[in-house]
Amino acid sequence: MTATLTISSRNYSSWSLRGWLICQLAGLEVREEIVPIDTETRAELLLLSSSVRVPRLTHEDVSVWDVLAIANYLNELYPDAGLYPEDRVARARCRSICGEMHSGFFNLRSALPMNLKSRHESFKVFSGARPDIQRIEQIWGDCLTRYGGPFLFGAAPTIADAMFAPVATRFVTYNVAIGEAAAAYRDTIMAWPLMRRWIDAALAEPEEMAELDGGF
Amino acid sequence: MTATLTISSRNYSSWSLRGWLICQLAGLEVREEIVPIDTETRAELLLLSSSVRVPRLTHEDVSVWDVLAIANYLNELYPDAGLYPEDRVARARCRSICGEMHSGFFNLRSALPMNLKSRHESFKVFSGARPDIQRIEQIWGDCLTRYGGPFLFGAAPTIADAMFAPVATRFVTYNVAIGEAAAAYRDTIMAWPLMRRWIDAALAEPEEMAELDGGF
Repeated sequence: MTATLTISSRNYSSWSLRGWLICQLAGLEVREEIVPIDTETRAELLLLSSSVRVPRLTHEDVSVWDVLAIANYLNELYPDAGLYPEDRVARARCRSICGEMHSGFFNLRSALPMNLKSRHESFKVFSGARPDIQRIEQIWGDCLTRYGGPFLFGAAPTIADAMFAPVATRFVTYNVAIGEAAAAYRDTIMAWPLMRRWIDAALAEPEEMAELDGGF
Repeated sequence: MTATLTISSRNYSSWSLRGWLICQLAGLEVREEIVPIDTETRAELLLLSSSVRVPRLTHEDVSVWDVLAIANYLNELYPDAGLYPEDRVARARCRSICGEMHSGFFNLRSALPMNLKSRHESFKVFSGARPDIQRIEQIWGDCLTRYGGPFLFGAAPTIADAMFAPVATRFVTYNVAIGEAAAAYRDTIMAWPLMRRWIDAALAEPEEMAELDGGF
């Protein structure tokens, strides 16, 4: 029995991207089911409403939604997949920064929505999103220094990289000025073969809704 | 070596309450360290900014912040404490609704901030928060029906009850009209001995900042 991952737009849904990356990291073969984005769903996505419950993983008799729930479900199922770092101190740090990404950075997420098809060379970053960007640079820099890169916890990607991957795309889309270390990590993420697969599929998708130009 | 849980206001910080409840459920003895709330911190709490990284658990050589990270760290450390339901299907559901609470319900959280000392008998609920309240009633009702109550996953409290406990206090503080099943669960939470301990301590705290009357 194949597992099914229900996702929404590849281009716009950062949570779908995270969920898909985590399934890939776990080595779980998933059939993708895409729920079309209608106007209402779009509004809900933009409002980051909790009523859009994608991604959702259906696996055997289990239905699990929410990215961190999927991650922890798969970590339990495949403890040897390396979803989290092996070292307990590093693993606690990994859980902590994943938690920050999951519950926070609201201003960044709303002002710079993921939009893989779009490029804004001279985007004016809303001042309210700046502390979020600074904190992300701090998290990335700290991990890269501690664990040596190129991924946040060393040589191999973990759940943390899946969680922060959409941020890397936003830094590209909105041409956000960041420091050297953060820029190197952004480039690592953008060159990650799994990311290339997702982005190529996103670019090939028909345009299902108007461009979300500019921040709001 | 005793563990330390860094929290902020008992009266206002719903994340601190959740973190404390989870430590109690895990049976971990913690020394509480309270960081005073200054004006800036208060502003950050109100904006739900990610830069206020409480609660934080310091345990042996581990520092872990963010409520779900603490929960999963403790679940790993004390697998027999019953932090999550034992049944795998129930556990996946538990993780999912905890994830929803952790990343969502932004309108509810901002329009009806936790304030244990306050009572508003005729509070007008911001219409944007209504879908959040409906979803919470749906989650609670569904769990109570599936697992028989009085807690979300049956006879004993789990992480899910810790995650939703601050919502029960908001329903009391703002006198939110909810259905019978949800009201019964709200009352279960408010009568939970751990909640009584926290609330009694909160009420005994000196007033460290002005009342946050009304929604914003």
